[in-house]
Amino acid sequence: MLGEFDIIRRFFMPPTDHTVLAGGDDAALIAVRAGMELAVSTDALIAGRHFFEDADAYGVGWKCMAVNLSDMAAMGASPRWATLALSLPRSDEQWLEQFARGFLDLAADQGVDLIGGDTTRGPLMVCVHIMGEVPAGQALRRAGARAGDDLWISGAVGDAALALAHARGDFRLHASDLDYAFKRLNQPHPRVQLGQSLLGFASAAIDVSDGLMADVQHIATASAVRAVLHWEQIPLSPVAKSYRAHPIVCQAALAGGDDYELAFTAAPGVRAEIEALPGQLGLALTRIGTMEPGAGVVVLDAGGKPIDLAERGFDHFR
Amino acid sequence: MLGEFDIIRRFFMPPTDHTVLAGGDDAALIAVRAGMELAVSTDALIAGRHFFEDADAYGVGWKCMAVNLSDMAAMGASPRWATLALSLPRSDEQWLEQFARGFLDLAADQGVDLIGGDTTRGPLMVCVHIMGEVPAGQALRRAGARAGDDLWISGAVGDAALALAHARGDFRLHASDLDYAFKRLNQPHPRVQLGQSLLGFASAAIDVSDGLMADVQHIATASAVRAVLHWEQIPLSPVAKSYRAHPIVCQAALAGGDDYELAFTAAPGVRAEIEALPGQLGLALTRIGTMEPGAGVVVLDAGGKPIDLAERGFDHFR
Repeated sequence: MLGEFDIIRRFFMPPTDHTVLAGGDDAALIAVRAGMELAVSTDALIAGRHFFEDADAYGVGWKCMAVNLSDMAAMGASPRWATLALSLPRSDEQWLEQFARGFLDLAADQGVDLIGGDTTRGPLMVCVHIMGEVPAGQALRRAGARAGDDLWISGAVGDAALALAHARGDFRLHASDLDYAFKRLNQPHPRVQLGQSLLGFASAAIDVSDGLMADVQHIATASAVRAVLHWEQIPLSPVAKSYRAHPIVCQAALAGGDDYELAFTAAPGVRAEIEALPGQLGLALTRIGTMEPGAGVVVLDAGGKPIDLAERGFDHFR
Repeated sequence: MLGEFDIIRRFFMPPTDHTVLAGGDDAALIAVRAGMELAVSTDALIAGRHFFEDADAYGVGWKCMAVNLSDMAAMGASPRWATLALSLPRSDEQWLEQFARGFLDLAADQGVDLIGGDTTRGPLMVCVHIMGEVPAGQALRRAGARAGDDLWISGAVGDAALALAHARGDFRLHASDLDYAFKRLNQPHPRVQLGQSLLGFASAAIDVSDGLMADVQHIATASAVRAVLHWEQIPLSPVAKSYRAHPIVCQAALAGGDDYELAFTAAPGVRAEIEALPGQLGLALTRIGTMEPGAGVVVLDAGGKPIDLAERGFDHFR
């Protein structure tokens, strides 16, 4: 059985790139660049709750980094440093090797130094703390949307929730769609570059982790405005579209969560700038609604009638 | 049953004092002052491993903050911000209220803003991330001790381990000593002010969490020197002294851990400056040994003979 220090040394001490002191002391040391604020976020992921106990370890590692990167994306911050606290029932070397590879592959891809951590014996649980830099005063917040602003979403929503519904036996995806849907669930690509590109353009932003409507509601509440979305404009992947006749697709897209796309608002005056981003980033951006005076979130169907998710089993994913 | 947002709002959103944006967004925002580096540390505490399942919640909250503050103390950093990820089997309001009070009492006492967090349903587990400022280039590290340096320790060691031995039924404390010993175990006072006072004087420092010998060994290894300690000089509390004839006291003091005192090295040339600190801080500092060329850690008894903890049951606390 590997001890705590062996685990850290063997799996979690890749070279760092922009850190004053990493690992092996009572704390790590970092230097935040002049003119920058530090964006700071923590997410804990627990086996059996945030991922399946028997989930592929590479995917678990990847996703633990991804959900934290997504928080940085939503602030427009450049992710720079992370720490990792890991609780494990036993030191399973194969699991650790795969987990570390997934976690560190995505960290390296996004320029994140792993600067410290803690491993303990206990229930399988991962707690990641991420820190990123954002020019002082420019971070994208949930508050800031104004009546008249456009509401945008990146990529497509609903795929992860369809994969989860399939895994739970609540819905059946065709065999040919499984690979795509489970990649979306287990290895999301946080929209880090998009977040940074939106600095100075977006008036508010959030990442879609709890479900599109719930997360847009957070923007609406924090900004004291109302969001009006149009179902026909919500971007679906070709896979999700192929099941469109099934009511679960609407639930998955509007309330499924785990999408890790960015929802953001921006004044109509910067549409041209935002419409230029997909070409630069290789990522679709879709205008899905408008912010209005008032409160709450409503999604209108093709006939202009509000969609009542409660009638369609809104609680399905809760 | 309270939901996640209710728990955070109700128990964990005290006003912040020096934070750009705290709570309620995708990330918190902080501004590190010019000329400062950020010291960053994470500790996860798991019920049944780091604290008893039925431990007093106030004490658990206090200790979760204390062990993290102790890491800041060991770097000479001023603790400034913390995040808290909490996993709970159920939302027990009374437990949460007490836990939050213990955590936040000590945070407020040390000027720490709680800036974000995450609560989930799961096994009882607490993950704290702490950040503090230290003047650039001045942090106290484990590396830096030189042959000829004095070795110092703050306060007294061994009390927490005696309390733990009592709780486990391995040793019996007198009823009149229980209160003192369990306060030392459950509500340690991290040596934050001492750490900051040592900037510019200490050549290396560490907090004593794993046991005096093990932690001094970390300094010796990182600094490539040998530590020679004298048992007769190790500071014991009056309570620990009263059991001195029992071999467990030596084990507890040298290898027990959970003391959260600071062990540090300094050149003999700054003895006067260090000897002035107890008067200023109200905290004893004791010179317990010397750093020499070589490697490893040895503790000499009154006759100059190395103490072999293996013979005295070194593994007792492992």
